[in-house]
Amino acid sequence: MANTQSLIEQLHRIVKDASRVIVDHESLVPFKSDYSSEGTTPLAVVFPITTKEASEILLLANQYKTPVFPRGRGTSLSGGPVPVVEGIIMDSTKWTSTLEIDPNNLIAVASPGVITADIDKAASKHGLMYPPDPSSLDIATIAGNVAENAGGPRGLKYGVTGDYVLGLEIVTPEGKVMKTGGKTMKNVTGYDLTGLITGSEGTLAVVSQVTLKLIPRPKETRTLSATFEDMTLAGNAVSAVLQNGLLPSKLEFIDQACIKAVEKFEPMDLPVFAEALLLAEVDGTGENVQKEIDEIALIFENFGGCVTVAKNETESNRLWKARKLVSPAIKALCSWKLSEDATVPVSQIPAMIKRLKTIGEKYNVPLVVFGHAGDGNLHPNLLLDKEDAGQLERAELAVKEIFQSALELGGTLSGEHGIGMLKSPFLKNEVGETGIDMMRRIKKAWDPNNILNPGKIFSADDNL
Amino acid sequence: MANTQSLIEQLHRIVKDASRVIVDHESLVPFKSDYSSEGTTPLAVVFPITTKEASEILLLANQYKTPVFPRGRGTSLSGGPVPVVEGIIMDSTKWTSTLEIDPNNLIAVASPGVITADIDKAASKHGLMYPPDPSSLDIATIAGNVAENAGGPRGLKYGVTGDYVLGLEIVTPEGKVMKTGGKTMKNVTGYDLTGLITGSEGTLAVVSQVTLKLIPRPKETRTLSATFEDMTLAGNAVSAVLQNGLLPSKLEFIDQACIKAVEKFEPMDLPVFAEALLLAEVDGTGENVQKEIDEIALIFENFGGCVTVAKNETESNRLWKARKLVSPAIKALCSWKLSEDATVPVSQIPAMIKRLKTIGEKYNVPLVVFGHAGDGNLHPNLLLDKEDAGQLERAELAVKEIFQSALELGGTLSGEHGIGMLKSPFLKNEVGETGIDMMRRIKKAWDPNNILNPGKIFSADDNL
Repeated sequence: MANTQSLIEQLHRIVKDASRVIVDHESLVPFKSDYSSEGTTPLAVVFPITTKEASEILLLANQYKTPVFPRGRGTSLSGGPVPVVEGIIMDSTKWTSTLEIDPNNLIAVASPGVITADIDKAASKHGLMYPPDPSSLDIATIAGNVAENAGGPRGLKYGVTGDYVLGLEIVTPEGKVMKTGGKTMKNVTGYDLTGLITGSEGTLAVVSQVTLKLIPRPKETRTLSATFEDMTLAGNAVSAVLQNGLLPSKLEFIDQACIKAVEKFEPMDLPVFAEALLLAEVDGTGENVQKEIDEIALIFENFGGCVTVAKNETESNRLWKARKLVSPAIKALCSWKLSEDATVPVSQIPAMIKRLKTIGEKYNVPLVVFGHAGDGNLHPNLLLDKEDAGQLERAELAVKEIFQSALELGGTLSGEHGIGMLKSPFLKNEVGETGIDMMRRIKKAWDPNNILNPGKIFSADDNL
Repeated sequence: MANTQSLIEQLHRIVKDASRVIVDHESLVPFKSDYSSEGTTPLAVVFPITTKEASEILLLANQYKTPVFPRGRGTSLSGGPVPVVEGIIMDSTKWTSTLEIDPNNLIAVASPGVITADIDKAASKHGLMYPPDPSSLDIATIAGNVAENAGGPRGLKYGVTGDYVLGLEIVTPEGKVMKTGGKTMKNVTGYDLTGLITGSEGTLAVVSQVTLKLIPRPKETRTLSATFEDMTLAGNAVSAVLQNGLLPSKLEFIDQACIKAVEKFEPMDLPVFAEALLLAEVDGTGENVQKEIDEIALIFENFGGCVTVAKNETESNRLWKARKLVSPAIKALCSWKLSEDATVPVSQIPAMIKRLKTIGEKYNVPLVVFGHAGDGNLHPNLLLDKEDAGQLERAELAVKEIFQSALELGGTLSGEHGIGMLKSPFLKNEVGETGIDMMRRIKKAWDPNNILNPGKIFSADDNL
């Protein structure tokens, strides 16, 4: 306790502004959770706004052997920023001083707490685009996106966060400041530490500045939706689009349960009798956009889809509204929503969808599926009743089988949510003991005191 | 000596086929060099063709504390595979058993020794493309490309090798076999070891299988060339193309000295009075290709360029021939060609070209410049006389100043050749002491006996 008191005094010494250190219990409580899970109430929350402060906080944490949990807006779906033991939350949300666009080099430089959507907005003023678009982009911080290597619908054509991180300024777990990568499109100077930090879930470094690649903003987009009476045909239609050399900017899938949930949540004449709804967006320039949307429409029709092409932006927004409301609509149906992101090779989408349905029935848990079908990244969601212990137990078994199915079909545990605390028990199934050992070696070499975000990625059982 | 004898016996025990173990001095000599530098004659060259053999060789090397130098075709321009001390060369060129295209998932799987161009050829049969195109693509192995994260002209639009590596099977420095990544487009399961291994120059793992992303093959390409009386205007024209939202598949630059060298090497009526020649290729579908080439032509003309648009493939090949002959042509002018790949942010290309010319004059060394102007990746080449010790000394100072200039302009030591042994003394200037320390920590954690490719990336002086 005396130790905690002294630690907090030291935090106040580093961060002079009292409003940037939280220690009262009531204010600390919200910081024990993210969008997926709950941990322990932290000792303190500190909001650094300079690299120097972040560095000094980590030096202090090493001195006190106290864990530090980096956090953005807490939108993680894998427990990423959740404190699993008592420690300090290092919150980046007040650290927003820098947001610079360099239109001559197609680059953005941002402080860790800058909101992702704000980067794209700033880029758009110069006719540029920052493509990664996780659902949380209006809330989440760029450092959070980097930590999780967040993806979104546009990942199909444009890739994920990591594909746009050219360089980082980071603070190492022991408080040293360094830069990785830079402002050039190509860089092979030593190990790719930029790539190693991206997606390392805050276990290897605190990101203090991000340098991002931007691209010319596509001049036009077109949207179509298609309903399918048969879900497998919808899955086959997705594969067919890609195999025909078409690359929509988005290609999203919603199953019947989601359609019904959205229609209940906000009636909009959705086809509740359809087994699946596909949404595709094409972007680019000139006649190619129209040509590509026509080709996709034709393929969808060949697989029995009933196609609607949006004639203008208003119609396009109306079509996308159904997809955007899926999460809130299914959340309204349950007291506990478990969102997974098992991902498979594109050709296995129909097989995976079938397996997911079977798993839901086998364990008798309400399971709905939506997601980024174009890159094989499905989001099976379990709609659970917090009070129903039996159901929660069955859900746990169902999740285990979902992961197993994804791996059996040549896929991965996580396409975009990360491992965090929720999937760490399953890591071994995908990367094997040697994989975990080699990852742990990096963690130990970089963070000998295990200060940064302990309890994430690796499971306690994996301490090989 | 007795120890070496026993080591060689053990190598024969692992690799039963005697033709896959070289130990006679004369046959060993070629393996002490790559395309850039020379090292020590190795003790033996061994050609594994299975993961098991590669693993056993590394186990043996750890037992004997003998370094292993992984090697492909030896086309490295930074000394990547050169043995700096006595050791075993592990040559992948006979390891070519697997080359599978999975058209349904847009994926290729290849053994380490498969030649890069063969992957693209196999992909093209399915209407697909493997975009990375280092100049050595007809000779180099895919594992060599992965080790160096090789790039090429198409890097501007399509990125480099690392952008296409979805997964690897690797043998760790201690001989353990593991897989990284997989067959999905998105994967955030634990640390991105695929990205860490790619570009690690054979210091962290031996690559035993590569899983690559393919893309739909663009249906059409168009080429134009433009000559400029003023080199700075050519540089500005490159920046203007990108700032106008155009993304050619290639955008190459050749300076006057290169033009003259090519014309001397093989007369083809090149404009020897022009200060610079730009070559652009656009790819895609339909009218957009023509539209884009027209827009580029207009921009080049606005900057004083004299433009020729190829009307057909024959004309296009003729235009590209000048670029392809640059390397052999300048090689013919000197006994020792030193090829650098200092890379700067695109907007700094004119400034970098000016500095390069000044450096050549200052140190009185013949310096020519060509390269991938579109992504800021220039190749200043020093044309040296092996016998002229004074010139070699001046060249060393010139190279130092080239690196310094790239860094001062916000660039990097290496855009695509790697650090190897040639640039290791300069690594600290870019990544700093902390950067080197954090890289070395990974190396030590993965390879405690320093078996894999010692003497690369890190300089002996950097042993922090």
